Amino acid sequence: MENDKCIVLLSGGIDSATALWWAKGRFREVYVITFLYGQRHSLELEYAKKLADLAGVKEHITVNLDVLRRVGGSALTDEDLPVPEGAYPPEGTISTYVPMRNSLFGVVTGAYMEVYGITDMVIGVHASDVPNYPDTRPEWAAALEALLNAGSSLSFDRKLRIRVHTPLVGLKKPDIIRMGLKMGVPYEWTWSCYSPVDGEPCGKCPTCIQRAEAFKEVGVPDPLLERIRKEKKEV
Amino acid sequence: MENDKCIVLLSGGIDSATALWWAKGRFREVYVITFLYGQRHSLELEYAKKLADLAGVKEHITVNLDVLRRVGGSALTDEDLPVPEGAYPPEGTISTYVPMRNSLFGVVTGAYMEVYGITDMVIGVHASDVPNYPDTRPEWAAALEALLNAGSSLSFDRKLRIRVHTPLVGLKKPDIIRMGLKMGVPYEWTWSCYSPVDGEPCGKCPTCIQRAEAFKEVGVPDPLLERIRKEKKEV
Repeated sequence: MENDKCIVLLSGGIDSATALWWAKGRFREVYVITFLYGQRHSLELEYAKKLADLAGVKEHITVNLDVLRRVGGSALTDEDLPVPEGAYPPEGTISTYVPMRNSLFGVVTGAYMEVYGITDMVIGVHASDVPNYPDTRPEWAAALEALLNAGSSLSFDRKLRIRVHTPLVGLKKPDIIRMGLKMGVPYEWTWSCYSPVDGEPCGKCPTCIQRAEAFKEVGVPDPLLERIRKEKKEV
Repeated sequence: MENDKCIVLLSGGIDSATALWWAKGRFREVYVITFLYGQRHSLELEYAKKLADLAGVKEHITVNLDVLRRVGGSALTDEDLPVPEGAYPPEGTISTYVPMRNSLFGVVTGAYMEVYGITDMVIGVHASDVPNYPDTRPEWAAALEALLNAGSSLSFDRKLRIRVHTPLVGLKKPDIIRMGLKMGVPYEWTWSCYSPVDGEPCGKCPTCIQRAEAFKEVGVPDPLLERIRKEKKEV
């Protein structure tokens, strides 16, 4: 056991689910926090709840952050901007980037950590997102950790050190899945698609394409698609 | 002119008003942003609006951040916690500290900066708050600047450098007032009190006491109290 308590940022996708199972093996009490921010793919939240249940977390905090919708500037929160189709571009911020989203998530999580007395945060940022999302880079996570330590009463009064753990840093999607399969992550309850159609992934958005390519590279069928197929047969 | 555009965090108090007048002299276009976060002293917002008008700002953005009330843990946002009376203690976080408040303000402002294409932020943190509020220290402002540069598309795609200006850093309240009086800051439209009574400052909370002591040290009557007194006579 690395420490007593931690809090995991859980979106309901592959990466944060893998980070959650990593945390389960290292901390005695695991809290999770999920943000609602007007994202189109709110199906994610249902999957996050299921994952939190399956992981047996101590508490699942859900936070409504509609401020990101008011800020705008992203295809994930602004209905006038189309969700792109096709694979992720090789580099440059993509229209599904939400300004300061992960920094905001990190700081709000930091506020809950102060109130709950939690010093360890776990976030599933990884190498596949780095070319397109500035707020997933290792230097971003290091800067978040520095800000939390500079601006929190945990460090100021109680001399505690806040840590931001990034267990997937440097890993690309297929490696994350390989790591997760070893830990038994229930990927049938992870959601990635930005534009679901009747509760099913669209198969065309960048994150659907990335997910399909990753499972293909690992050499296993996507457990989510398997589960949906099976449920359909049963109906 | 140091630069083209900037955005000032404006609460309606003495410090942010002084920072706003400092910014007026250095940037061609000045935006201001004010946060509503369930603070008891919402009278501040009326004063912030008046200050923005008097300063002739380009735009006054107001942002509702009720997430801080849900996080709780502060006498400023939780009605079950009493606002303290008497002077600020010599050191240690005080009950009017709001977990991660300034970090959250900084990051949300950073999101607006991305959408508006503004690289310069001005924030009125100062030395009188440092013993009691971790998120007013120079190292906090430096860490915020680092996070904004690490996690923003402005730096990632456009290679712009985001700056967090702290013109009052190192200054205590009387020095801030001396600086502001030289620039013509209309202190009669600044609000400090945490527990107003019928639109008047209580005179007993830490920030009222700090304000009174500062004007006394500078040797001028508080323009806010003068204005209120005059208005009462006219009624």
